[in-house]
Amino acid sequence: MTGESGCVIWFTGLSGAGKSTLAEALGGYMRSLGHKVELLDGDIVRKVFPQTGFSKKDRDEHVRRMGYLASILERNGVAVIASFISPYRESRDFVRSLCRNFVEVYVSTSLSECEKRDVKGLYRRARAGEISSFTGIDDPYEAPLRPEITIDTAGEEVGKSLERLINNLESLNILE
Amino acid sequence: MTGESGCVIWFTGLSGAGKSTLAEALGGYMRSLGHKVELLDGDIVRKVFPQTGFSKKDRDEHVRRMGYLASILERNGVAVIASFISPYRESRDFVRSLCRNFVEVYVSTSLSECEKRDVKGLYRRARAGEISSFTGIDDPYEAPLRPEITIDTAGEEVGKSLERLINNLESLNILE
Repeated sequence: MTGESGCVIWFTGLSGAGKSTLAEALGGYMRSLGHKVELLDGDIVRKVFPQTGFSKKDRDEHVRRMGYLASILERNGVAVIASFISPYRESRDFVRSLCRNFVEVYVSTSLSECEKRDVKGLYRRARAGEISSFTGIDDPYEAPLRPEITIDTAGEEVGKSLERLINNLESLNILE
Repeated sequence: MTGESGCVIWFTGLSGAGKSTLAEALGGYMRSLGHKVELLDGDIVRKVFPQTGFSKKDRDEHVRRMGYLASILERNGVAVIASFISPYRESRDFVRSLCRNFVEVYVSTSLSECEKRDVKGLYRRARAGEISSFTGIDDPYEAPLRPEITIDTAGEEVGKSLERLINNLESLNILE
């Protein structure tokens, strides 16, 4: 794959699993290889569209629209690195159906590990009932059945997870 | 402007005004000049997202999301040609605020002319009450106050309108 062919590398997993961290690290690495990279991150996109809610309908719609965006970027030669909790299998499969080179990366870090980290303090607030519809607590997460790549970031430095990810992407011929 | 710099050429106007026809013609012309072109068309996008409604909220959200998509394509060197009724000034201005090279093309063909054409038979159905929330009939259209380009396609061949459009884009240094 040259820097001119697009792809969509889609990170899914719980809040705090390490999706955005890995996505950013991978983005930097791919830019250094000459790829045109676009990072799409759930938290950032939601800041642009603050009216997007967390109901199943809103989450589905959000993921589908971002997938559409990713697919159009992909066909314009952009390497899209998307990082969304994207808890529903059906909407992730919809995104897959829109894309050509789609790689689902399941960041499988367990709920207990994510909750232990609780980088943004959201799990604590969800447990306290201050936030509702929080994935993993009172909202479902449907794990991928056949993700191209699975990464558990527990007990591992980011550099090590990144290395495993890159090796996997090389095996898939997404990276050379 | 080289084929590598992005821009967003945004067509707004009533249904049947000639937006999509002009957008497609311009797209072909720009591709022939070596631009990487992406056409975004309201009718096509709505087929991908059939749940998108026609309330003010739905229309606003739809236009804003398409504008976000356009802005990301633009910064990846794509010439985006967008064709949406996009009836509300505020959401068009939001899109403008996201983009770098934004050109608002107001296809100002009058309601009476659009209704006379009625290519898709929608005006007839709207008048008969079979369709509601139809822009121009029972839903508002807020014309741009300071569009970069205004084109009335009434009584004019597509080729002639396209020529005027291209001349205008050249004056704005969007085309060489």
